[in-house]
Amino acid sequence: MKIMNISEIQNQLKKFAIERDWEQFHTPKNLAMALSVEASELVEIFQWLNVEESNSPDQRQIEKVNNEVADIAMYLLRFCSVLGIDLEKAIESKLERNAAKYPVDLSKGNAQKYNQRGE
Amino acid sequence: MKIMNISEIQNQLKKFAIERDWEQFHTPKNLAMALSVEASELVEIFQWLNVEESNSPDQRQIEKVNNEVADIAMYLLRFCSVLGIDLEKAIESKLERNAAKYPVDLSKGNAQKYNQRGE
Amino acid sequence: MKIMNISEIQNQLKKFAIERDWEQFHTPKNLAMALSVEASELVEIFQWLNVEESNSPDQRQIEKVNNEVADIAMYLLRFCSVLGIDLEKAIESKLERNAAKYPVDLSKGNAQKYNQRGE
Amino acid sequence: MKIMNISEIQNQLKKFAIERDWEQFHTPKNLAMALSVEASELVEIFQWLNVEESNSPDQRQIEKVNNEVADIAMYLLRFCSVLGIDLEKAIESKLERNAAKYPVDLSKGNAQKYNQRGE
Repeated sequence: MKIMNISEIQNQLKKFAIERDWEQFHTPKNLAMALSVEASELVEIFQWLNVEESNSPDQRQIEKVNNEVADIAMYLLRFCSVLGIDLEKAIESKLERNAAKYPVDLSKGNAQKYNQRGE
Repeated sequence: MKIMNISEIQNQLKKFAIERDWEQFHTPKNLAMALSVEASELVEIFQWLNVEESNSPDQRQIEKVNNEVADIAMYLLRFCSVLGIDLEKAIESKLERNAAKYPVDLSKGNAQKYNQRGE
Repeated sequence: MKIMNISEIQNQLKKFAIERDWEQFHTPKNLAMALSVEASELVEIFQWLNVEESNSPDQRQIEKVNNEVADIAMYLLRFCSVLGIDLEKAIESKLERNAAKYPVDLSKGNAQKYNQRGE
Repeated sequence: MKIMNISEIQNQLKKFAIERDWEQFHTPKNLAMALSVEASELVEIFQWLNVEESNSPDQRQIEKVNNEVADIAMYLLRFCSVLGIDLEKAIESKLERNAAKYPVDLSKGNAQKYNQRGE
């Protein structure tokens, strides 16, 4: 199953928070912090690995990775829910802007250009 | 539209990378770094805001938020794609573990407990 | 004692790495990652705290804070050492640029201006 | 000059904040966020670089690195100042704990052990 029902997951996360009286903690500011902390926990798994090790994580690392990507996705969906952000629409809009920003002929195999991306 | 087709977005992101010969940069290690950098750019929007300001971002901030959540989602989906991680399955599994870890009667309105979460 | 001997600490950190054959892991890229991971561990302590709780961490939190600021400082000093960066000079230079960038009369009590800082 | 006068820099940073009425923004929570955001800006410089490129940043990258390490150090010193943390003491204490935690004979050339560090 690869069709993710975002609304359903967001409803589950909201219900989970309401039941525990945790909505008070779920300000956009706090959720952004929590999201970045989980992202760093993903980074931590890879920080000392070389390229080959990074491409072939072992079973223990894969389990940790599954755990962290779930946390990241859940805080991201909760954050969007709290602020009323339509994540899918945001992604579609960004995909279009990226296509315009990085035309194939100028970007292809251009590591230098890629390295400066976002700076 | 709230049914996100993960596979389709992942296919678009892969095609985007292949066309630009960027797959060489998309190691799990690098993608985890990029994801955490985008998460911090989301944090940056909120870092000096108080709770009220955080709850009611202005139009300029909302636009930046939309931009950052899209970047986060796209790097997360690309990361999962490269490592063959099933994100939806990971989320479902984590939701079940969280329900067991934080029973309503022990967690409700318990800020202290919540504060120690994840430490 | 508030005069920190940076060179001495950097020498200790270098000796520590050499003795364990860990210099191979201490690339600037890896050290920057490790530094950001430690910074997020500091964030994690505060992520669910309100302003009052943040201003008055308890003894357990203070111990964790001491641990994380040490890790951050040590990775920062190690990073500078590996790349030959003079941290004190970098700070002095930045202090001067900040004084020019944020003149008192334009910046005073100007939260809106402050909020946009760095964006 | 490699003897950094921490107190003096902290005094300068405090004076800078007071003059601009910025102390209201400098809660431990906000400063921890700002520190992690700056750490991610350092990561961003290296995120797409391979090991060789990471070891030999060009002049433009070095300038950015100098800028970011200064920001990190300044937020770290300001954070410690606000919470009354003695950074030098924290570092010394951590150096001792690390020496006990990673004995040379068990840690030497042991990448696997190193990879699991901190997990």
